[in-house]
Amino acid sequence: MSTDADKPWTWSEDTWRAKVEHVRAGRSLAPARWKDGARCAVALSFDSDHETIELRFGGASYGKMSQGQYGARKGTPRIMRLLERHGVPATFFMPAVSALLHPNEARAVGASGHELGIHSWIHEFNSRLDHATERDLALRAADTLEKLSGRRPVGMRTASWDFSPYTLKIIREMGLLYDSSLMADGEPYELLDEGAPTGIVELPVEWIRDDAIYFNMDRMAGLRPYTGPETVLNIFQRELDLAHEEGGLYVLTMHPHHIGHRSRIFILDEIIRHAKSLPGVWFATHEEIARWCATEAGLPARA
Amino acid sequence: MSTDADKPWTWSEDTWRAKVEHVRAGRSLAPARWKDGARCAVALSFDSDHETIELRFGGASYGKMSQGQYGARKGTPRIMRLLERHGVPATFFMPAVSALLHPNEARAVGASGHELGIHSWIHEFNSRLDHATERDLALRAADTLEKLSGRRPVGMRTASWDFSPYTLKIIREMGLLYDSSLMADGEPYELLDEGAPTGIVELPVEWIRDDAIYFNMDRMAGLRPYTGPETVLNIFQRELDLAHEEGGLYVLTMHPHHIGHRSRIFILDEIIRHAKSLPGVWFATHEEIARWCATEAGLPARA
Amino acid sequence: MSTDADKPWTWSEDTWRAKVEHVRAGRSLAPARWKDGARCAVALSFDSDHETIELRFGGASYGKMSQGQYGARKGTPRIMRLLERHGVPATFFMPAVSALLHPNEARAVGASGHELGIHSWIHEFNSRLDHATERDLALRAADTLEKLSGRRPVGMRTASWDFSPYTLKIIREMGLLYDSSLMADGEPYELLDEGAPTGIVELPVEWIRDDAIYFNMDRMAGLRPYTGPETVLNIFQRELDLAHEEGGLYVLTMHPHHIGHRSRIFILDEIIRHAKSLPGVWFATHEEIARWCATEAGLPARA
Amino acid sequence: MSTDADKPWTWSEDTWRAKVEHVRAGRSLAPARWKDGARCAVALSFDSDHETIELRFGGASYGKMSQGQYGARKGTPRIMRLLERHGVPATFFMPAVSALLHPNEARAVGASGHELGIHSWIHEFNSRLDHATERDLALRAADTLEKLSGRRPVGMRTASWDFSPYTLKIIREMGLLYDSSLMADGEPYELLDEGAPTGIVELPVEWIRDDAIYFNMDRMAGLRPYTGPETVLNIFQRELDLAHEEGGLYVLTMHPHHIGHRSRIFILDEIIRHAKSLPGVWFATHEEIARWCATEAGLPARA
Repeated sequence: MSTDADKPWTWSEDTWRAKVEHVRAGRSLAPARWKDGARCAVALSFDSDHETIELRFGGASYGKMSQGQYGARKGTPRIMRLLERHGVPATFFMPAVSALLHPNEARAVGASGHELGIHSWIHEFNSRLDHATERDLALRAADTLEKLSGRRPVGMRTASWDFSPYTLKIIREMGLLYDSSLMADGEPYELLDEGAPTGIVELPVEWIRDDAIYFNMDRMAGLRPYTGPETVLNIFQRELDLAHEEGGLYVLTMHPHHIGHRSRIFILDEIIRHAKSLPGVWFATHEEIARWCATEAGLPARA
Repeated sequence: MSTDADKPWTWSEDTWRAKVEHVRAGRSLAPARWKDGARCAVALSFDSDHETIELRFGGASYGKMSQGQYGARKGTPRIMRLLERHGVPATFFMPAVSALLHPNEARAVGASGHELGIHSWIHEFNSRLDHATERDLALRAADTLEKLSGRRPVGMRTASWDFSPYTLKIIREMGLLYDSSLMADGEPYELLDEGAPTGIVELPVEWIRDDAIYFNMDRMAGLRPYTGPETVLNIFQRELDLAHEEGGLYVLTMHPHHIGHRSRIFILDEIIRHAKSLPGVWFATHEEIARWCATEAGLPARA
Repeated sequence: MSTDADKPWTWSEDTWRAKVEHVRAGRSLAPARWKDGARCAVALSFDSDHETIELRFGGASYGKMSQGQYGARKGTPRIMRLLERHGVPATFFMPAVSALLHPNEARAVGASGHELGIHSWIHEFNSRLDHATERDLALRAADTLEKLSGRRPVGMRTASWDFSPYTLKIIREMGLLYDSSLMADGEPYELLDEGAPTGIVELPVEWIRDDAIYFNMDRMAGLRPYTGPETVLNIFQRELDLAHEEGGLYVLTMHPHHIGHRSRIFILDEIIRHAKSLPGVWFATHEEIARWCATEAGLPARA
Repeated sequence: MSTDADKPWTWSEDTWRAKVEHVRAGRSLAPARWKDGARCAVALSFDSDHETIELRFGGASYGKMSQGQYGARKGTPRIMRLLERHGVPATFFMPAVSALLHPNEARAVGASGHELGIHSWIHEFNSRLDHATERDLALRAADTLEKLSGRRPVGMRTASWDFSPYTLKIIREMGLLYDSSLMADGEPYELLDEGAPTGIVELPVEWIRDDAIYFNMDRMAGLRPYTGPETVLNIFQRELDLAHEEGGLYVLTMHPHHIGHRSRIFILDEIIRHAKSLPGVWFATHEEIARWCATEAGLPARA
């Protein structure tokens, strides 16, 4: 039975089925009703990577490091003020190193009623790690966030949404409530571990609803912010409109060092205004939404 | 006589002519009239690749695998509902492995009056295979689709439109009615095999009329969905308008994991509405169109 | 005196000056007046590469070859009809192999009063050739076009605008009237060969005024047609408006296999309409414009 | 203590802290008031790289060299006329080799009341140099600009904003007033050298406010000018609007060989017009702004 990665057309059915089923979407956890009879749930999230975007590649560029620092220095404060003005909660996923570099930010997030979630140690790619290393980094990341914010995180978003063969097993061992790194659906679903239900809620992301793919700038990698901000708003709004029409979930991923800029912050402002103009929108943290879905579906209580 | 691929300026005329004529567009099969006197034929197609997009590269990323699963879980159902609401047929090209992973989808396509077409085994690149392997995979793909849907497919779309030196010979041996992978014209044409007519109808595609080129997201390859969906609609509509004006054929290629998203499905809806607003549009499967053209041109009957 | 290409900061002044002055823009040849007192000269050009775009890379992809064939089969005829309807001339630059594959097209261009210009042998990159090979291919290309069209070409556009260290010397030896491959100005200028005037007219191109950079699609190279056609029209029109305001030259480079598509041909139509709506626009071939500029500047007569 | 660049997740806290703090943003130098009570400071800058863009890569492409020459021949004059018409000052950062190739341009910039700033020797990447080489090139660059313009430059913008581990130490040794290559804030700030204040003013740039990232064209590197000029104007204007609203600084980076083209110069025109339409905008050179901020903050006098 060949498993030659370069020749998948030679694989046996067992081989490709095993790959597909190793981590997969199980039953839908879209609830029959959202909290207080809301029609749609809006989960705003910010991956507060800051300097770790450059550190994870060796930290050789001071330009890129300063670009990351902008996120902490200007981006997050601008976002926090906007969220406060609108009175809506959000979830901030912070790499542990980013939280250690900006402990006041990590504390302020928790103190403002927002949620702080796990987002790797130093924005490492999980798929380059062995099981023991990935596990160790995940545990230390949770410890770090707990120590800084006073509360143990209950959810994880993998860095670069790089979900390794070991990630789900680590999430289970850690007893987390939810993950938010996969994209097999628009609605919440239960993760399957080699076909078996896990009780873990997946709050699905999508590159479409991620500011980075339109705005990333990497001089050497050829990435450029080619898409105008009004087009990005248009895309984010269309995703929201149909989520609302379908009575579903809307997860938006942003980055303080992208959306936090002067020419882009209006996108977040407009999305919140638009959501508020729709009837029956529940703004909630990832944790609140995951708990709601888990309870409605009768999943056993977790973290 | 040099045939050094790196120095084509040293090639003899025989060499470059042989390359050009190995597989080429022959006479136009644009019919004098479309069915029931229609002015324009609209052929909607969906390449239902789902998880095979990642499997074909070794299946190492669970994020990309979930992106593919979205196509099966949300994209195709959303598309099928839309087609049903508008009452228009379409052709779904499914890799055999995708059909085996989603047998109900393969069955439902056939049961809904849509067409199911060959689209490789596991989305392999044909140009990396030898003749025997490509032939074996094509035959097994046809067998698989027949077994699942109860009907033997009559047309092929190569994965990634990667037409190898052997593809046409395999299509002929299989007795297929049509191919839909090449782009030498906007109208149907007869394929030439080393200069000789084959009786095979080509229903030409174009990257311009493919949602993937605007919407593809590949973190490592630098591909990003930079083009806004309203611009994509504008392009697709311009292609349709001139096809209609010229009394021709309009083949549109889409993917459930691209067009099936909340911010994009309106493109398909608008294209169908626009086509319906034009006088004399015949919505048909690839098979129906190929048969019509073959008959009108007096080609001998095939599959 | 170091000339290490990897360490240009170690170069002596002689070294970098020699590189800059090897081929350079000399005096402006912008005429005091255009023909018949026109305010602005419009030079439409089409690089009729067709299958050579793929042949030059070894010709391994039948998909790309069919994309090129589209240029000959649909693109050029559509363009020729449009030019005829508007009654405006243009210059078609054809690789010799493209002309040999489509001799009727080469003849028709000449017979329609358009100009046929040199555009390499098989779309090879000049910078990969030695002097003797580049010279041999240029001479054979000129012979081929002359034999097919009955008239010896007087101007050259290098393939991919890849101007080698030998190109200018070959142009001089061939006694050509003009080149159209460089971009040091918006107006015509005289080329300098190691600082000395050559009498050769440069009709400058620019990637900005080239349809390919917005519309190119190369699956493996990551190039995608991300820019919408209405944006491309906007750019082309802005270039034209200021050329007209400044009383200058407007050279537009297009490709039958790009601009010739149903969703793009309107760009050419609109540009011609817009130019006609402006007062005092002279539509002319590259040859006519080069001759006019040469005469007005008192350059000695050439080809 | 591991510092393996490929495995940053193994780094000790000392290691990543040292990397982050080597060069970093210190206290904000945003002044309580701008000159004459202005609400917002606008700093237009032009990186006059011209032929050095190609020379720094070995200078092998005459096409790219001509593209650079366009900057000197058409771009800068068009920009200078526009600035004069509007009566606004700007800062021109010139590589020394560019200034030596275009000495009249370097002189004209100074004579017109604009500022001439350091911008490397030949547009080299600083991060590829050792300390001694980078220092030698910076000093020779300053000497060259002083000799040509009659005034010693007081500020630096690194080429490609490539700030090396040695750059800040060289800036300090040279006694410069300011740097404009980093992006940790939108407002001016004081640079920290391994945690210690330096008295150097950073006038932060951002790729978002750089014309090159939208307009760059590099045939071989896959860079294309995909973003339409009206979108670029929209982005630049949004950045300006919020800078004005916040009472802050607006640094715009442009290049004569990009913005100087016929289809793009309107962007600069519109930005200046828009800024003039806002109440209380102070147009100033980088030097004037840096001096103002330094004085307001009580920093010791420098260059």
